[in-house]
Amino acid sequence: MGILIKTDAKSNIPLFRQIMEQIIDLIEARALAPDTRLPSSRSLAERLGVNRSTVYKAYQELWALGYLNSRPGSYSTIRQRPRVVSRETGTGRGLIDWREASTGSARNLYDRYTQEKPYMDVAPRPGTIDFIPLSPDSRLFPVDDFRKCMNHVLVTEGAKLLEYGSARGYRPLREFIASRMSQHSVSITADEILITTGAQNGIELLLQLLAPSGSGVAFEGPTYSRALDIFRLYDLKMIEIPMDENGMDLSALRRVIDRESPALVYTIPNFHNPTGLTTTQEHRESLLHICEQYRIPLVEDGFEEEMKYFGKAVLPIKSMDRRGVVTYLGTFSKVLFPGLRIGWIAAEKACIDRLVPIQRAAILSGNLLDQAALERFCRLGHYDLHIKRMHRIYRKRMQTAFKAMREALPAEWVDWTQPAGGYTIWIRLRHPRIDEAVLMANLADSGVRVLPGRFHYHGSPAGLNFRLSIGLLEETEIQEGIARLGEAIESTIGK
Amino acid sequence: MGILIKTDAKSNIPLFRQIMEQIIDLIEARALAPDTRLPSSRSLAERLGVNRSTVYKAYQELWALGYLNSRPGSYSTIRQRPRVVSRETGTGRGLIDWREASTGSARNLYDRYTQEKPYMDVAPRPGTIDFIPLSPDSRLFPVDDFRKCMNHVLVTEGAKLLEYGSARGYRPLREFIASRMSQHSVSITADEILITTGAQNGIELLLQLLAPSGSGVAFEGPTYSRALDIFRLYDLKMIEIPMDENGMDLSALRRVIDRESPALVYTIPNFHNPTGLTTTQEHRESLLHICEQYRIPLVEDGFEEEMKYFGKAVLPIKSMDRRGVVTYLGTFSKVLFPGLRIGWIAAEKACIDRLVPIQRAAILSGNLLDQAALERFCRLGHYDLHIKRMHRIYRKRMQTAFKAMREALPAEWVDWTQPAGGYTIWIRLRHPRIDEAVLMANLADSGVRVLPGRFHYHGSPAGLNFRLSIGLLEETEIQEGIARLGEAIESTIGK
Repeated sequence: MGILIKTDAKSNIPLFRQIMEQIIDLIEARALAPDTRLPSSRSLAERLGVNRSTVYKAYQELWALGYLNSRPGSYSTIRQRPRVVSRETGTGRGLIDWREASTGSARNLYDRYTQEKPYMDVAPRPGTIDFIPLSPDSRLFPVDDFRKCMNHVLVTEGAKLLEYGSARGYRPLREFIASRMSQHSVSITADEILITTGAQNGIELLLQLLAPSGSGVAFEGPTYSRALDIFRLYDLKMIEIPMDENGMDLSALRRVIDRESPALVYTIPNFHNPTGLTTTQEHRESLLHICEQYRIPLVEDGFEEEMKYFGKAVLPIKSMDRRGVVTYLGTFSKVLFPGLRIGWIAAEKACIDRLVPIQRAAILSGNLLDQAALERFCRLGHYDLHIKRMHRIYRKRMQTAFKAMREALPAEWVDWTQPAGGYTIWIRLRHPRIDEAVLMANLADSGVRVLPGRFHYHGSPAGLNFRLSIGLLEETEIQEGIARLGEAIESTIGK
Repeated sequence: MGILIKTDAKSNIPLFRQIMEQIIDLIEARALAPDTRLPSSRSLAERLGVNRSTVYKAYQELWALGYLNSRPGSYSTIRQRPRVVSRETGTGRGLIDWREASTGSARNLYDRYTQEKPYMDVAPRPGTIDFIPLSPDSRLFPVDDFRKCMNHVLVTEGAKLLEYGSARGYRPLREFIASRMSQHSVSITADEILITTGAQNGIELLLQLLAPSGSGVAFEGPTYSRALDIFRLYDLKMIEIPMDENGMDLSALRRVIDRESPALVYTIPNFHNPTGLTTTQEHRESLLHICEQYRIPLVEDGFEEEMKYFGKAVLPIKSMDRRGVVTYLGTFSKVLFPGLRIGWIAAEKACIDRLVPIQRAAILSGNLLDQAALERFCRLGHYDLHIKRMHRIYRKRMQTAFKAMREALPAEWVDWTQPAGGYTIWIRLRHPRIDEAVLMANLADSGVRVLPGRFHYHGSPAGLNFRLSIGLLEETEIQEGIARLGEAIESTIGK
């Protein structure tokens, strides 16, 4: 048989590839149908005036790519071959319904995500003052100091840091964290610390260790909405304990523990997300005592430990943890760089040792490069200086928010918290006729975004609440935003 | 009552803190017993000659720290307070037995981990030639080029990259990956890619989406041991399909699917870990066809896609995936920098969209800084150059290993694979009297480390096997290491 192939010895494309590609074109164009016999490599080579090994190589490649059937001592034939997917053909209906294929909890999580998406994942209209993101202001990031640290560790130990590293994390950083925690009266060593991908990953690791599917987890209602997400993903029984002005209702907690034996208790004692509440020393002791009494791990989320602006010192519950029931979650995300994704778990060594194989199964190894750059940043004193600066700035921002609320919000219908630190303020609307949908529309009209409180509850929210985060806003923006908020509330009530 | 306190106006320590600390010392020393009444702030202030507000502030801090009981209009008294944990008192027996508190699968994982630890987590004796780590050689890392890229992205967009970012990952990197995959005939867009914390994290995310506790997962036996770990952690039914010289036994797979309906099939078609086997185009098509027929997601682990040194081109199964059943795992860890922890999942958009809320629940946000530095590194062409260099070097290293094995291993008792790429070689010992423990002891005496094959099986291993990884070794080290291996085998057989 004759097939039409031309070769060009002057081309940059190797001869075997020229042959191969022309045969592929003929096959794709159906000029060579399945089962067609190809000429022998010898005869094609003679006809083209090329070396026989060139044709042989082309046939080998075609065979490897599935275009040919080839048996020893026999002619090659064109093979019926599934075509490589092109962008056009690939858009056909898939065989797998990914919703159907999802686990129940993944489906549940996805549905929640789509409900929140309009609030969380969509950029606000230009000019909107956005009280939603809970994040430090990137205009304040000490990027250049960090860049120098990154540069230094890459120069001095780059190759080592880019190898697989310990799943526990970079030891000098764990040592820094241990020394830093001692300033909060927590006495701990580097062996009692595991570096995590932010505090969020710390929650997940603790669930993977402690909470089998279907077991219970007790937490404050309202609470951090991403904690609810990860509880849902792990298919846990959600035990939402109401809060009063002191924090989690401890008698309710006791009753729940008696009845449900949760696998763990999750709490945010400082600048609680979303309410901004800080619990008292007495409340902390009582909560610890309950967990000791029932031998239930207490997960203390200290995500904003460093961000205290007002009032007296408070100590982490972990500082009183003589019997090892507290697992403490820390993070650099709410003070320094969220994007670096570096947090930690501090817990008894026996607990950390059991988290290590889980972390290894999940990600093999920590990212030691980022951890080493951060450690140098901290060790050179940049971290302390940055915290001081953040305190100075956010103390004023928070005071500005308090003042603006006193001036702009109708006190007869609105309550708000006055957090001692962090970024979030919790607003309660007490007017009987007020409706969330109407208020949200008025807020959008006024050019201000706040997060409805209901996302922070697993069950029904207690009344109509909103979370304000001042993280990304300067003082003038806070003033203007709260003024707009006041107008929107007034006009909603006035209707 | 009188308490002994002195203040020093010249000290750097604020007066209120001097007072506070001395009272704490008195309490800790039991000189002030619980329920002792403190002097009023007025009287103590007069006695010390300080402002009353100074004493008031000291009392407030003491109250906040839990040292005092304080009620409005009443004297403060010393409170019975749990002491902050010091390193000494903290080492007492903890209340929680972390083994008992662990879930069954976490316990199982930990037990496996402790069995492997002597092989994986302990540094070898000096002078040992170590065939265990499956990792590229850090002596070949292009650290300086990467450092410049990191520096550049920190200078030009540092603050933005250090904010919370998309859980999907840095879009330009996803675009680079999409274009790179098209070189392997996979046609895909950035929206069909999710950046993961290495390919390992990709496996976990797919399990979280698709495999509820107790469901089945089918995989080659032997397989990647960390895949077994994560399957175990998610409490899956382990369906180990035997391999023959073509790869996974597909008739066995069919039977298993009929009987067990696994949630997914996991496969490593290139330079399979641990055997080094690369499956044929035909095998790939048949496997894909089975998964299409049963509508079962096929997880294709392409962890070393780029590292092919010998033989004909092979295409990823994903390249033929017209019906969207393949979820492909890629990573930069086995070519470039393991420590950066950057991999990806490529799958239908509907699948990626459902993975996003899971990744958000797990870690909130990707690490965009590292992703942006890597994207620049790739876009400037450093990645392609690095791959070419790696090919040049590892082709020779692998050839050196083949030659050394032919020379040093007793062919009548030992088989080995000849992988077309990657780092691992699989050795089978066929001598009837050979015993693993004796051989391991002889290997240790000879100064060479290899990984027993049994860690790569969930069930019983098929015969006595070992994995050799040449990743970290230069040619002379490979030669010497294989010579030592040959001696150790000979002396074991000789006994």
